[in-house]
Amino acid sequence: MTRIPFEEMKATIKKAFMTAGMPEDKADTCARIHAESSRDGVYSHGLNRVERFVDYIHKGWVDVHATPVLEKQLGSMEVYNGNMGPGILNAIYAMNRATELAEQNGLGLVSLNNTTHWMRGGTYGWQAAEKGFIGILWTNTESCMPTWGAKSSGIGNNPFIMSIPRKEGHVVLDMAMSQYSYGKLQVTRLKGAKLPYPGGFDQEGMLTDDPGMIEETRRILPMGYWKGSGFAILLDLISSLLSGGKTTAAIDKYDKGSCGSCCQVFIAINPLMINTQEFIDNALGDTIEQLRVSVPAKENGKIFYPGEQSLRTREENSELGIPVDDSVWAKVKELAQISI
Amino acid sequence: MTRIPFEEMKATIKKAFMTAGMPEDKADTCARIHAESSRDGVYSHGLNRVERFVDYIHKGWVDVHATPVLEKQLGSMEVYNGNMGPGILNAIYAMNRATELAEQNGLGLVSLNNTTHWMRGGTYGWQAAEKGFIGILWTNTESCMPTWGAKSSGIGNNPFIMSIPRKEGHVVLDMAMSQYSYGKLQVTRLKGAKLPYPGGFDQEGMLTDDPGMIEETRRILPMGYWKGSGFAILLDLISSLLSGGKTTAAIDKYDKGSCGSCCQVFIAINPLMINTQEFIDNALGDTIEQLRVSVPAKENGKIFYPGEQSLRTREENSELGIPVDDSVWAKVKELAQISI
Repeated sequence: MTRIPFEEMKATIKKAFMTAGMPEDKADTCARIHAESSRDGVYSHGLNRVERFVDYIHKGWVDVHATPVLEKQLGSMEVYNGNMGPGILNAIYAMNRATELAEQNGLGLVSLNNTTHWMRGGTYGWQAAEKGFIGILWTNTESCMPTWGAKSSGIGNNPFIMSIPRKEGHVVLDMAMSQYSYGKLQVTRLKGAKLPYPGGFDQEGMLTDDPGMIEETRRILPMGYWKGSGFAILLDLISSLLSGGKTTAAIDKYDKGSCGSCCQVFIAINPLMINTQEFIDNALGDTIEQLRVSVPAKENGKIFYPGEQSLRTREENSELGIPVDDSVWAKVKELAQISI
Repeated sequence: MTRIPFEEMKATIKKAFMTAGMPEDKADTCARIHAESSRDGVYSHGLNRVERFVDYIHKGWVDVHATPVLEKQLGSMEVYNGNMGPGILNAIYAMNRATELAEQNGLGLVSLNNTTHWMRGGTYGWQAAEKGFIGILWTNTESCMPTWGAKSSGIGNNPFIMSIPRKEGHVVLDMAMSQYSYGKLQVTRLKGAKLPYPGGFDQEGMLTDDPGMIEETRRILPMGYWKGSGFAILLDLISSLLSGGKTTAAIDKYDKGSCGSCCQVFIAINPLMINTQEFIDNALGDTIEQLRVSVPAKENGKIFYPGEQSLRTREENSELGIPVDDSVWAKVKELAQISI
């Protein structure tokens, strides 16, 4: 396994994006987010996603020059048209605007219609937390998972993120609606391994932990069975109704790549307008203490708060370099026109 | 199985609450909500919960005379102290106030600290939808489930509800964080049956679908394993930070019954301030159509939207009467001082 220093990875991705026609400042931000995702261990939406993003630019599915345009302003709520601009830049803009609204009133909600893939959803949860705000955000997607009770695809994987600022490390939940991603299935299959728990259905309609069988049926399992299925439907509908944008069903028909013309919702709340810092510190401290003193399921097992493992991976990869798949890294260097 | 007409059930519960000291108007509302929960098929938080609620009144854990008091007002956000009043009345008040705020600005967020068990969380999602608003709401609870990686209890079951108004039947998701409730485990065990899917761990730490084994270890499974566990932690912390109220860890120490002094968050959004009714109808219609045309997993299987099955049960129980456990019904009649 090769490990690449963060700055080298970022600079290489930036060149790849500029070569594809992105202005330098935009390429710089997008490259930073991709490199940060890989650094934090979300490889699927970091370096590994660069080639596909460049392909979308070439196909005209992402407009590198587009920026969000305000469509509606209602008190603490604003609706923007993302104009099919780069999903990362649109989402950073929207989350930032939500925190500005929350700075004034305690609460801000910004929705985006007509935007594109935001890559790692957690990015914008961390962004809110870094600025001292609670973040609640989600996106809809094209359909890629059967509704509970169905075997053909009908609902999106719709990641949902919640984040809370904390001095010693933000508390961040970043979850998609499927129990496992297709990326996880592929990686597990290539290792010749089984999933830790059943992740979908085989040809006979039985739950299985064999990743290859699930890739064949494409019947991935919503987390919590009917619960993740229902949650995906509500996240999809509410993101459309809050932004005036496309539902999963409409994104399927539009068909401009993964998340092409999707909708997103960004909520920011200023906890210091409601509580003192001391109250907040105690609430966070007591809760994390309650996890720490739990009896571990496995001897010497450790119980983590949401976001803690990302932070550990971040530290390790910052120190040792970010692990890359050699063929993926070679491809990104090729896109950056760096001779290998 | 005995079936009781809705009005008879409501009147009997009302008498039980008045006998326990509740003023008539409050008893009427609370009795209606309990009866509606049973009518909609949520028996665990309907008639079956009357005895425990009356017990809490007698113990002084619920103050039947208390009402919510405004503590903070911040634009579209308001914080109330629930003063340990009846959870149902506090929650109805808070959701109603959130819709009033949303009527003015499109968006309203009301939080409650120091409140008590709201019974069926879905009630307030249906309430928002009936008034034409999108609802997003949750509560924290005492701990009753192990954090992922632990075998001792550390996190709450924290129900989360999302609802969308729809002429032909509202779309309502009402889910707790555990895969199954303890009520479901008990009912399944008493039938001598197995759970449809594994619902927790046995003494050896293996996943099991045997409800009795899970009741012994009390290691119920969070929905989606680590996902439901993390979600429960974030819902708990955010409800505390938005209301200035107690976290699950603090509720555990306070120890005044299930959900005694819990926190709740109610968000209401007016979709008609963002979209036309036609847009909303199409988004809902296309999405439900996409579910309907899915290939069912089982021959002639039907795929439901969230809330649809509640509506079917509502229709059936409204027509035929609400099924009751005879001993539970006798007990409530006893509490109502009706001779049996």
